[in-house]
Amino acid sequence: MATEQELREQLATCTRIFAMQGLIGLFGHVSVFQPETKTVFVTPGSGSDKAHFMASDMIPIDLTGKPTTGQIPPPVEWPIHTALHAHRTDALAVAHLHTPYATLFGIAKREFHPVTLQGTVFGEGVPLYKEAHLVTTPQRGDAMLKTIGDHRALLMRGHGIVVAGKSLAEVLFASLILEDDAKKTMQAAALGPVEHFSADECKTFNAEIDFERRANRAWEFFSRIESQWDHQGGTGKIELFP
Amino acid sequence: MATEQELREQLATCTRIFAMQGLIGLFGHVSVFQPETKTVFVTPGSGSDKAHFMASDMIPIDLTGKPTTGQIPPPVEWPIHTALHAHRTDALAVAHLHTPYATLFGIAKREFHPVTLQGTVFGEGVPLYKEAHLVTTPQRGDAMLKTIGDHRALLMRGHGIVVAGKSLAEVLFASLILEDDAKKTMQAAALGPVEHFSADECKTFNAEIDFERRANRAWEFFSRIESQWDHQGGTGKIELFP
Amino acid sequence: MATEQELREQLATCTRIFAMQGLIGLFGHVSVFQPETKTVFVTPGSGSDKAHFMASDMIPIDLTGKPTTGQIPPPVEWPIHTALHAHRTDALAVAHLHTPYATLFGIAKREFHPVTLQGTVFGEGVPLYKEAHLVTTPQRGDAMLKTIGDHRALLMRGHGIVVAGKSLAEVLFASLILEDDAKKTMQAAALGPVEHFSADECKTFNAEIDFERRANRAWEFFSRIESQWDHQGGTGKIELFP
Amino acid sequence: MATEQELREQLATCTRIFAMQGLIGLFGHVSVFQPETKTVFVTPGSGSDKAHFMASDMIPIDLTGKPTTGQIPPPVEWPIHTALHAHRTDALAVAHLHTPYATLFGIAKREFHPVTLQGTVFGEGVPLYKEAHLVTTPQRGDAMLKTIGDHRALLMRGHGIVVAGKSLAEVLFASLILEDDAKKTMQAAALGPVEHFSADECKTFNAEIDFERRANRAWEFFSRIESQWDHQGGTGKIELFP
Repeated sequence: MATEQELREQLATCTRIFAMQGLIGLFGHVSVFQPETKTVFVTPGSGSDKAHFMASDMIPIDLTGKPTTGQIPPPVEWPIHTALHAHRTDALAVAHLHTPYATLFGIAKREFHPVTLQGTVFGEGVPLYKEAHLVTTPQRGDAMLKTIGDHRALLMRGHGIVVAGKSLAEVLFASLILEDDAKKTMQAAALGPVEHFSADECKTFNAEIDFERRANRAWEFFSRIESQWDHQGGTGKIELFP
Repeated sequence: MATEQELREQLATCTRIFAMQGLIGLFGHVSVFQPETKTVFVTPGSGSDKAHFMASDMIPIDLTGKPTTGQIPPPVEWPIHTALHAHRTDALAVAHLHTPYATLFGIAKREFHPVTLQGTVFGEGVPLYKEAHLVTTPQRGDAMLKTIGDHRALLMRGHGIVVAGKSLAEVLFASLILEDDAKKTMQAAALGPVEHFSADECKTFNAEIDFERRANRAWEFFSRIESQWDHQGGTGKIELFP
Repeated sequence: MATEQELREQLATCTRIFAMQGLIGLFGHVSVFQPETKTVFVTPGSGSDKAHFMASDMIPIDLTGKPTTGQIPPPVEWPIHTALHAHRTDALAVAHLHTPYATLFGIAKREFHPVTLQGTVFGEGVPLYKEAHLVTTPQRGDAMLKTIGDHRALLMRGHGIVVAGKSLAEVLFASLILEDDAKKTMQAAALGPVEHFSADECKTFNAEIDFERRANRAWEFFSRIESQWDHQGGTGKIELFP
Repeated sequence: MATEQELREQLATCTRIFAMQGLIGLFGHVSVFQPETKTVFVTPGSGSDKAHFMASDMIPIDLTGKPTTGQIPPPVEWPIHTALHAHRTDALAVAHLHTPYATLFGIAKREFHPVTLQGTVFGEGVPLYKEAHLVTTPQRGDAMLKTIGDHRALLMRGHGIVVAGKSLAEVLFASLILEDDAKKTMQAAALGPVEHFSADECKTFNAEIDFERRANRAWEFFSRIESQWDHQGGTGKIELFP
């Protein structure tokens, strides 16, 4: 069992890396779940300075969205996090982001398919939540949960993405991959018809190459880069797979 | 009533944020109106260093474009500002910018429609001013005023944009949103047909989520980021909605 | 008559600004002509560090490409400069660059047309030099001269651009405009059919707004920004017309 | 014969330049061969910090992938390097990268053709390796070798590139060119049909302009820029041919 302090530190680090990579800013929030205490640790809401988050900034809430300590309310879309943490045992970490490229698949009429070997982790596809609202109530959280099903990620129309995983390392790596595959698809489309990997190819690749191990490597890599970052907005962003 | 010093400081801050975000540079100007004295405070014209503006750099003019103190002339397109401040009580702040992406809608033959939930604030559309000149006379200012009508923003053919609002915070946030939606539309178009929000969806969303409150949150966020900026050209720019 | 030292300093400044803007790097060179002495001052050739040029780095050559002092040879494509300086009295400054966006018009089969009000300075069009070689001999220089005619700029197939002007300020501003219009055309094309300004609109706009005055304003603006630049490759670049 | 220390230093420098240019990051590796001792020096594998590599970080392996000193294993795709070093005498240096633009030609159904004069070095084309796996065994290394044949570079479907050359300077310059031509092709395609250089034009250009000499110039240029880099991720990247 990870301690509260460990979870708080991992969550702050994960969010600072997202800020460095240009994947979180004015809006967006990330959470991690402690199943033994049924506590969700979530980042502060809109307007907070993600690039400078510390462990002590994280907000603990229960599964009804109520802060368990302190007076700071969670982000208004907290039901995204509680719905997933309460109902999926493989969703111990959740990010709700408005990443520039993946969001385009919630704007253009085009299904997302993996176009890189790393993207094969999304071989099962990424469903689309079509409602034109923020997920601000448990009812909307349930509707979101029904749409994502047991998928690793969700697209939200004209809005952003939700990514779930067994750890913050998995959520970080999967979010970076989703963004990278979305960007490459958009750019490749200018060159000609885009070829994506088949469901079979995705399964074969992922049977051979362990996702959790790769995610941990990515976590170590980006943590190190982040520790060298000047933490100024707009600097530090690097491509995932150059 | 906001004091002159408060207005000057807000105007300088707003313009430095625009500079940080890459939305103002060689050209472009921003203004704020003090209705009690009918004074327009406007930023200096072409060539001035927007990234380093201070409150004392702001130029006060009357509604005929005449400086009320000092000898520094306002930007040559001052009639954009005076036309809006004089005739629209909801236009207490005005920006004339040449933002890279929104300007594309004044080049390609395509109407602007909101593609993100935040973009729904432009659900009424953004009209296009077609004349191939700068707005350097009160007559042209009137023509511009007639085209924008009671809209929040205006596109100018092969030129740039005008954004009006009840406060500099609103103008800042609306300009950032317009730019972000323009960019996302261009990028999504590479993926397939682009789906925009309907007028009804726009109304429903904005009835639920208060624009002024969001604009103030964005102001606080970007002010904080700007205060950490190294003020070097080309650094500091971050995506609006990652 | 500008002194040699003045010309050397202006040339070094102009080239450092091009480096800051990402428009010169490994290759590319800029020159200025002193008609009284028929001396061409040109920047060093491939591999030199443009971001740190000083007045003393500039190479003086005569109209046959021979260094008038020192042993450092000019760039191998020196005939571009001597051909223009010798035969066009309005070409007192010349840049040969490989700018990322304008060069695309030497790759795609599409004529360049101005799409912004500032771009109207290219209302006469920009011809294309089609030969698949570097301009390394006086004969090729003459062929280049014949193709550019009395135009302000030239596109070179799969290669780059040549821009000529009455001063380095004009060459700087015109190059930035050409690049900006090329970029905007490419981006707008993703949105729909692109509308460019007609020859008549170009003439009318330029009769009203003085190019030389704008070019000098741009020179002052970018000189000031450059003096604040950290001179690290890849930093400092800003959009021309935000 | 280059000493081990010289090869180690060149390899570290080359990789730091790739990191500065955004062409290597989480994954990717580069190698250089010492034919007299049949030793391959290769960079550490996934997760290592390429921007800070020193000569002492380089891993020596034999042609069966076994470290000749130390316990640190080579990257899992070491067979890419050993296959080329063992069988092609003109492959004294090899890079396996996941460069953002060239990789698009392994996603879109479109053959790569050179569109710039510098790109003519790829006039013989760039073959595509279609297997959906990493090259982690000697058998896969042989299949890769068969596909690349005697070409200078290889595209790998949904994955990345391999570039081989007589020196690290050649591999660096060729990789930068391949990336630049891929980017320009994608961007030019938005403007209209793209015209590439014919095989004959490629031959003629390269007969006149020496590739090795240009590669050495590029090496000197980028080494100097890299020595001034702040080594922060996401800064320092410059266009190859502005």
